[in-house]
Amino acid sequence: MDKMTKIEIITRPEKMSDLKEAMNEIGITGMTVSHVLGCGMQKGKTEMYRGVPYEISLLPKVKFEIIVCEVPVDLVVTKAKAVLKTGNIGDGKIFIYPVENVIKIRTGEEGVKAL
Amino acid sequence: MDKMTKIEIITRPEKMSDLKEAMNEIGITGMTVSHVLGCGMQKGKTEMYRGVPYEISLLPKVKFEIIVCEVPVDLVVTKAKAVLKTGNIGDGKIFIYPVENVIKIRTGEEGVKAL
Amino acid sequence: MDKMTKIEIITRPEKMSDLKEAMNEIGITGMTVSHVLGCGMQKGKTEMYRGVPYEISLLPKVKFEIIVCEVPVDLVVTKAKAVLKTGNIGDGKIFIYPVENVIKIRTGEEGVKAL
Ligand SMILES: Nc1ncnc2c1ncn2[C@@H]1O[C@H](COP(=O)(O)OP(=O)(O)OP(=O)(O)O)[C@@H](O)[C@H]1O
Ligand SMILES: Nc1ncnc2c1ncn2[C@@H]1O[C@H](COP(=O)(O)OP(=O)(O)OP(=O)(O)O)[C@@H](O)[C@H]1O
Ligand SMILES: Nc1ncnc2c1ncn2[C@@H]1O[C@H](COP(=O)(O)OP(=O)(O)OP(=O)(O)O)[C@@H](O)[C@H]1O
Ligand SMILES: [Mg+2]
Ligand SMILES: [Mg+2]
Ligand SMILES: [Mg+2]
Repeated sequence: MDKMTKIEIITRPEKMSDLKEAMNEIGITGMTVSHVLGCGMQKGKTEMYRGVPYEISLLPKVKFEIIVCEVPVDLVVTKAKAVLKTGNIGDGKIFIYPVENVIKIRTGEEGVKAL
Repeated sequence: MDKMTKIEIITRPEKMSDLKEAMNEIGITGMTVSHVLGCGMQKGKTEMYRGVPYEISLLPKVKFEIIVCEVPVDLVVTKAKAVLKTGNIGDGKIFIYPVENVIKIRTGEEGVKAL
Repeated sequence: MDKMTKIEIITRPEKMSDLKEAMNEIGITGMTVSHVLGCGMQKGKTEMYRGVPYEISLLPKVKFEIIVCEVPVDLVVTKAKAVLKTGNIGDGKIFIYPVENVIKIRTGEEGVKAL
């Protein structure tokens, strides 16, 4: 079976719409988005949220989960960086995980065919 | 150690209660549920939400996370399909991931004993 | 590349702040927190939420996701147990997963350098 991979991108909520469009452009066939809280341990540096510095290290973030097989992981990472990088702290982080299988419920298809 | 597996089921919010009952019936010992947004890339086809067609591809979905060891993955998948399949687009998707360990905090038990 | 691991801790919402501080103390460099619903299959035993027994097995829980490389998994687990264990049902569960890679968007660093 072809290798399947989960790419998790956690970034600023303001970037949600741009990131969705960017993923669409590179042929991603689905994604799951959720609202989370992110604790970045800045060790003294202060991240800004809507122009206000946050003392406590707990900020609203958006999490994208994207499972790919045919679309290369590197393409997703490169595209996400292009959209999300500002150079300021809090630009976000990408985590890559192994996936064992995918099933599309409507058709019963599995693996790459289910994506 | 026995192989442990995470099964992630993403489907329509209306199915939340039925899916919970179905998992209970097959002896699942715990589950975690969250509200997410799903972007299905329908490439022109329109998914309905509460009778309204959605132009933008971002719909409320419910995500179930179930970690199993003794209950077979196939049984969970078969049962989920039985409850969730309508034949319409948007029935949902199942993702399978490897799990390295589980710990029950109250007892300190690990692995299959923690499930 | 050094082994990277995801530690997922699901516990009572009241413990959110204590757990965050505890993780900070052991040098965790980031974490992601979300609100979820937990179905513990107590098979007859009743878990309490804000002093009220819950008939239906669906309770508000908080989920911490922590990706580590240099900080040992065992240290995170031991610290989490110390903060979360009350001896009552519902203390929480810890799930351990493999991670393939991590990328810090601001710097482009990968792997252990991105953590
Ligand atoms: N080790 C980690 N484990 C789990 N989640 C993390 C971890 N590191 C970062 N995150 C998540 O990613 C979000 C964005 O992280 P962020 O961009 O602040 O990373 P960073 O390493 O602090 O980089 P920067 O120095 O550019 O701010 C965090 O708010 C948190 O939700
Ligand atoms: N590749 C993917 N990566 C991440 N999440 C996905 C992916 N594909 C689907 N999902 C999630 O699963 C949800 C349900 O998907 P859906 O049932 O629409 O799958 P589909 O492949 O579009 O099948 P169908 O043609 O039957 O609609 C989506 O809303 C999204 O949250
Ligand atoms: N097998 C599982 N799969 C997915 N999530 C689980 C599983 N078991 C537990 N959880 C999640 O962890 C939360 C806390 O679990 P809980 O502490 O009640 O575990 P437990 O095994 O029932 O132990 P206890 O007997 O001490 O209550 C649950 O509410 C649920 O969100
Ligand atoms: Mg940061
Ligand atoms: Mg769809
Ligand atoms: Mg319980």
